[in-house]
Amino acid sequence: MAHGAGGKASRRLVEGLFAPLLFASGSEPLGDAAHLDFSGTRIAITTDSFVVKPLSFPGGSIGELAVNGTVNDLAVSGARAEALVVTYVLEAGLPTPVLEAEVRAMGEAASKAGVTIAGGDTKVVEHGKADFMYITTTGIGRPLHGVRVDPRSVRSGDKIVLSGPIGDHGITILLARGELDLEADLRSDTRSVLPLVEAMAKATGPGIRWMRDPTRGGVATSLNELARDCGLGIVLTEEKLAVRDAVRGACELLGLDPLHIANEGQFLAVVAPEYTDAALNALNLCPGGEEGRVIGEVREQPAGAVLVSTRYGGSRIVDMLVGDPLPRIC
Amino acid sequence: MAHGAGGKASRRLVEGLFAPLLFASGSEPLGDAAHLDFSGTRIAITTDSFVVKPLSFPGGSIGELAVNGTVNDLAVSGARAEALVVTYVLEAGLPTPVLEAEVRAMGEAASKAGVTIAGGDTKVVEHGKADFMYITTTGIGRPLHGVRVDPRSVRSGDKIVLSGPIGDHGITILLARGELDLEADLRSDTRSVLPLVEAMAKATGPGIRWMRDPTRGGVATSLNELARDCGLGIVLTEEKLAVRDAVRGACELLGLDPLHIANEGQFLAVVAPEYTDAALNALNLCPGGEEGRVIGEVREQPAGAVLVSTRYGGSRIVDMLVGDPLPRIC
Repeated sequence: MAHGAGGKASRRLVEGLFAPLLFASGSEPLGDAAHLDFSGTRIAITTDSFVVKPLSFPGGSIGELAVNGTVNDLAVSGARAEALVVTYVLEAGLPTPVLEAEVRAMGEAASKAGVTIAGGDTKVVEHGKADFMYITTTGIGRPLHGVRVDPRSVRSGDKIVLSGPIGDHGITILLARGELDLEADLRSDTRSVLPLVEAMAKATGPGIRWMRDPTRGGVATSLNELARDCGLGIVLTEEKLAVRDAVRGACELLGLDPLHIANEGQFLAVVAPEYTDAALNALNLCPGGEEGRVIGEVREQPAGAVLVSTRYGGSRIVDMLVGDPLPRIC
Repeated sequence: MAHGAGGKASRRLVEGLFAPLLFASGSEPLGDAAHLDFSGTRIAITTDSFVVKPLSFPGGSIGELAVNGTVNDLAVSGARAEALVVTYVLEAGLPTPVLEAEVRAMGEAASKAGVTIAGGDTKVVEHGKADFMYITTTGIGRPLHGVRVDPRSVRSGDKIVLSGPIGDHGITILLARGELDLEADLRSDTRSVLPLVEAMAKATGPGIRWMRDPTRGGVATSLNELARDCGLGIVLTEEKLAVRDAVRGACELLGLDPLHIANEGQFLAVVAPEYTDAALNALNLCPGGEEGRVIGEVREQPAGAVLVSTRYGGSRIVDMLVGDPLPRIC
């Protein structure tokens, strides 16, 4: 299960097995979407399978995740989603209303995100396989003008911006499974972050050096990948991280770090220092971006690692997610 | 299971549930790939999930199917695959050599088909939930010059060309499951049909009115969909259909019609009569296209249906596939 958790084991699987056998060139850092040249037109493309359990939860369902997740992967690669294609692997005996609810959720999420669904495919497998349904969404998009996301362009002194509170999605799923005797008024943060990204891009274009949506593996894993790809250190200020009480409480009970918990409607950006005020201003003015903050900065040291300075003057290294404390989160 | 078999129930599901909730316009006939306008550049896109059981079989495996199936869906929509993205839903406990074999098979099939793999995603689900693995492949492609595939352009008098013998893939899978006490020297026909389509397109460009790869549901289902979409009748000459002895034998034993059995390396084309000789000539000269033949023609009657005239002077209507005699074929 750890190989699917988006942390260390996932990265080893991708770098050790998939990339050498599938990808022509291993020199580019792995991003959220590939940008290709197509007869002179740049196209961004990304694909994701969704296997979240349960199918629906406070604040969303697999259908919305499948649209928003793909729109967001394009957004943080610096592209606006234009069209999606989708496949459903359905379990025999799936009640039609369950399927219809998710198809409807996808249609509505797509319409909200301003993206067309251009086609799809359906397969049916035997009862007991596929936990009702797995959905795979692929999106193609158009690069945002003037935005170029590349971890190799990150410099010491750049600021780390985070769009809002962390851990809502992961802890919501955990609670929705009902395996813990915990209740909290918490909802998944699933949404399209494209409007936020576009607002920031418009205000700061070339000032954005890198973006990522910290889904599986959380903020810590995304920033560790960045640290590795740019060879610099990331230093976070713990008190700047917004964490709701319900998320903090559940994490404390379970011995989890909110920095490792999945988000579905947040994004991280590295912004050149001279553009930080403009970026933050644009983000905060955009509906849904009010809680965006600078949470840290890039430094020469600790090279390749993420350090969190705590509110009591201490500091700790935060690694990528190891193992899989919360399987099947998206 | 019938809803996943590619026949009548699948079509009802797509037309009754998916299309109204997901697709903006329901007026275009449903094809194998969508063609989109992207800043003035035409892009074809298609997506498919693969859930074949068993994972490997004589002549191929899920990894090859996942590449060739997507390349072929683009080819018969009149486009050359340029890039693929792929997702794997893996079952916990899957032996690494099994995964590696399929990733390797995908890499090799992609290289053979001349297409790049640009990215991907991996999810892991619990043991028992995904029959080892499900693969989803999405392809984007560039339209072939001068080719325009549209069932509404089909005219009475047009000829139906089929690229080779039918039923090899479906019967191979059936035998590979070992549930029947049958043995035969038979292999899946999985391959990229792009070279054949390109050879024909080069020879006849505008003479090609429609194409499809008769996978799930077989030749009968593809031609019934065509008959419905163009409102004309399709008349096949049974003795022109190439069917290997092993396929014919297995079908007779099981009460199946080879016209309903899935193919993974064949395609159907409707060609304007004045271009038929050139099309067939180009197809037969291309390696792997030697067994291409004209198998019938388009007539005014029986409108919206497919008629097979048998070698003894009789005739029978062949409907779309109903039910699912061979589940999980691709």
